[in-house]
Amino acid sequence: MADVRTRPSTPETLTIMGGGLVGSLLSLYLARHGHAVEVFERRPDIRGTDPVEARSINLALSDRGWRALEGVGIAEAVREVAIAMHGRVMHDVQGNLTVQPYGQAGQSIYSVSRAGLNRRMLDLVEQEPAIKLFFNQQCRRVDLRKQELEMLDTATQQSRVVSYQRLFGVDGAYSAVRGAMQRTDRFNYSQQYLDYGYKELTIAAAPGGEWPIEKHALHIWPRGQYMMIALPNLDGSFNCTLFFPYEGPASFAALQTPDQVREFFTAVFPDAVPLMPELETEFFENPTSSLVTVRCFPWAHQDEVLLLGDAAHAIVPFYGQGMNAGFEDCTVLNELLARHGHDWAAIFQEFEDSRKPNADAMADLAVYNFEEMRDRVADPRFLLQKKIESQISAQYPHKWLPLYSQVTFSSLPYAEAWANGQAQERIMQRLMPHIQTEADYQRPEVQQLVAEEMARRPG
Amino acid sequence: MADVRTRPSTPETLTIMGGGLVGSLLSLYLARHGHAVEVFERRPDIRGTDPVEARSINLALSDRGWRALEGVGIAEAVREVAIAMHGRVMHDVQGNLTVQPYGQAGQSIYSVSRAGLNRRMLDLVEQEPAIKLFFNQQCRRVDLRKQELEMLDTATQQSRVVSYQRLFGVDGAYSAVRGAMQRTDRFNYSQQYLDYGYKELTIAAAPGGEWPIEKHALHIWPRGQYMMIALPNLDGSFNCTLFFPYEGPASFAALQTPDQVREFFTAVFPDAVPLMPELETEFFENPTSSLVTVRCFPWAHQDEVLLLGDAAHAIVPFYGQGMNAGFEDCTVLNELLARHGHDWAAIFQEFEDSRKPNADAMADLAVYNFEEMRDRVADPRFLLQKKIESQISAQYPHKWLPLYSQVTFSSLPYAEAWANGQAQERIMQRLMPHIQTEADYQRPEVQQLVAEEMARRPG
Repeated sequence: MADVRTRPSTPETLTIMGGGLVGSLLSLYLARHGHAVEVFERRPDIRGTDPVEARSINLALSDRGWRALEGVGIAEAVREVAIAMHGRVMHDVQGNLTVQPYGQAGQSIYSVSRAGLNRRMLDLVEQEPAIKLFFNQQCRRVDLRKQELEMLDTATQQSRVVSYQRLFGVDGAYSAVRGAMQRTDRFNYSQQYLDYGYKELTIAAAPGGEWPIEKHALHIWPRGQYMMIALPNLDGSFNCTLFFPYEGPASFAALQTPDQVREFFTAVFPDAVPLMPELETEFFENPTSSLVTVRCFPWAHQDEVLLLGDAAHAIVPFYGQGMNAGFEDCTVLNELLARHGHDWAAIFQEFEDSRKPNADAMADLAVYNFEEMRDRVADPRFLLQKKIESQISAQYPHKWLPLYSQVTFSSLPYAEAWANGQAQERIMQRLMPHIQTEADYQRPEVQQLVAEEMARRPG
Repeated sequence: MADVRTRPSTPETLTIMGGGLVGSLLSLYLARHGHAVEVFERRPDIRGTDPVEARSINLALSDRGWRALEGVGIAEAVREVAIAMHGRVMHDVQGNLTVQPYGQAGQSIYSVSRAGLNRRMLDLVEQEPAIKLFFNQQCRRVDLRKQELEMLDTATQQSRVVSYQRLFGVDGAYSAVRGAMQRTDRFNYSQQYLDYGYKELTIAAAPGGEWPIEKHALHIWPRGQYMMIALPNLDGSFNCTLFFPYEGPASFAALQTPDQVREFFTAVFPDAVPLMPELETEFFENPTSSLVTVRCFPWAHQDEVLLLGDAAHAIVPFYGQGMNAGFEDCTVLNELLARHGHDWAAIFQEFEDSRKPNADAMADLAVYNFEEMRDRVADPRFLLQKKIESQISAQYPHKWLPLYSQVTFSSLPYAEAWANGQAQERIMQRLMPHIQTEADYQRPEVQQLVAEEMARRPG
């Protein structure tokens, strides 16, 4: 094992651990502020990998994400590989469909391939002369006291020690940088797993590369204690994800043979099964992955290290906000860089103080939305309530924005969105007993109740 | 770095990581069941250390701890170095004292020196031929898959790899064994720190080795947002602990000079200061230590590894139950060993399933009792409530045991104690508005209310 010590090229070079989506975007923002940046990424360059092998999950890009991409002028490049999803399409056990728009007309979330997006962002990063990208860099050790990293080049198996002045830990839910901070005194930390795992499956493209189900939607097969979802790909296929208990009567543990899988899927997802020719193969070849929420604090170690993205706040995927929250971290940091210049102590402290409550709220929202997606969206009363909310929002636009829209189509801090959403839910609980159909919203009694509730709200 | 592979002497050898209080006791229990045991302890043999240098905190041994010590026949040996504390003595800012007995007559908790207790237990362990003790053994790595430990002998700086068949992680709040388990999938983990630190101080013995304040009591200087406590030593001195905020107007951060320390202590602990000749020296030489609660699950890795004691459930010290809970782990495991023999899978699973809710309850109780000790015990209404509770307990012994007694003087599972205690507190909240003095308990109106409440309770 060689131990080659290298120093960053200039004293002001910033070090980023992690060249994933948030790490790439962060490097662009830091370079825009005049800093030299070195990015260390554990994996090989994803652009050298066969796209089929690098097949990855899809992500839902929404307003916060777009805003962060626009901040460095790369939104248009990303938009070319994104597919708009205008709403949810629910598939019941008979194969009947129900549509629920996500927002007002023209408001959509966007299906993007994680791998495709990462490739495109790395291309943009590489055009930036101030940024140096290093792949195959596995972080073996972070020495916070000496400000040193032990990096193993997995291609050459050479180890070296890299000094840093300022380290940004953007190395994901299992962050090595956070691992070192966890061993410092008074570092609060938790990792909590759901009793659910997930498995990636595929709905194949129709002949001619057409989409066999509605292209511009996020499809959900809500089944109470579990669900499957599907997001469109550019090639006509859909990436499906089964969210499923590890144990129990309907669970990963209960499906042990190809026959059991086919029988189960045919019973509960009958309209999807004919579109999934590789079902049994994929079910047993693809891994079952776990679902973790990570919370920690502080995010900064003195003015030397800062955690962002999943390293600071990994969440479960049910609100489609993991990447968007990480991108918004970059927006927030960008504002602080503009305001505080080189006062890193001020930047780091304001970042963690202002951002932590929002990360906590988003973590709660993500768990909350799992129940909504797998269970409540199958309930006609729930869908009626959403329609009534939509009417309230149209009638009182300054008083009412549905929770989903606050999270997805606004840049309101997550903590405020969550508090607003809970207050609105309490109002709906008082209102819905008076409502049986969408038309009931116009009844004088209901209009009176709504007017009274709205009078009590700020706006 | 030498890499000497050693195998445990027989296939049935059990491996214990940690030779502290719980590790020592556990080794005795496992040996009693016919197992060969190897114990690896990170520190040097504490018995070779100068007792003054090894000066350590005092612990409060109570019924659960005694029961576990009795189970291996070592209670009497420990009783020789323990000092009974019959109750709390509260010191107010004028130096006035208030006494609150811990339980019924004859019920006490016991002050023991952690170092002294550990020494005595190591002596007992060493007399057991089936147990091998290794000191200066720092665990560098736990490989759960290969069932291997990388151990560094800190005396010789030799490293070796030790295989294990069955590993008991009793290596404390910062457990290396748990550290390895934390990196396995679906391991729930949290470490949460209080915003308080603590510092050890000393009240000196009076001339002739006498105790300058009441020997048979736990002394508390409750001051709302902070407190000092003192436990008696055998030599006439008391170990004091200041529990104090890290930041704020009265805090470690606010006391930066010897003069500031003396001025502050003289103002808030006036009767203690004349008894603390080394106050300023100790304040700046002794470390400020943090207060952490660790929760995790599972505690078992297959039928190969089990966490016990602080490694599984580190708690803050305010109920004096940390050691007692760890010792009770041994009692519970002992019962399971007797019941399940060599069926380690059954033993480990029943241990973690039955013990986890009790560990969680004890963690909550410990944080709850901090507020009681630093704040509520200074409130005459709180002390009156405790006296009324005592009367209820005397009148309805099968219906009512004060929470403190359930935790400290019973072996009721902690989770039941905590639930009972909360139910009893709700009753006291309904009762106390009718009570102004201790004598009011006999008023017919109050007796009627109590009778009604008791009629609704199981017992």
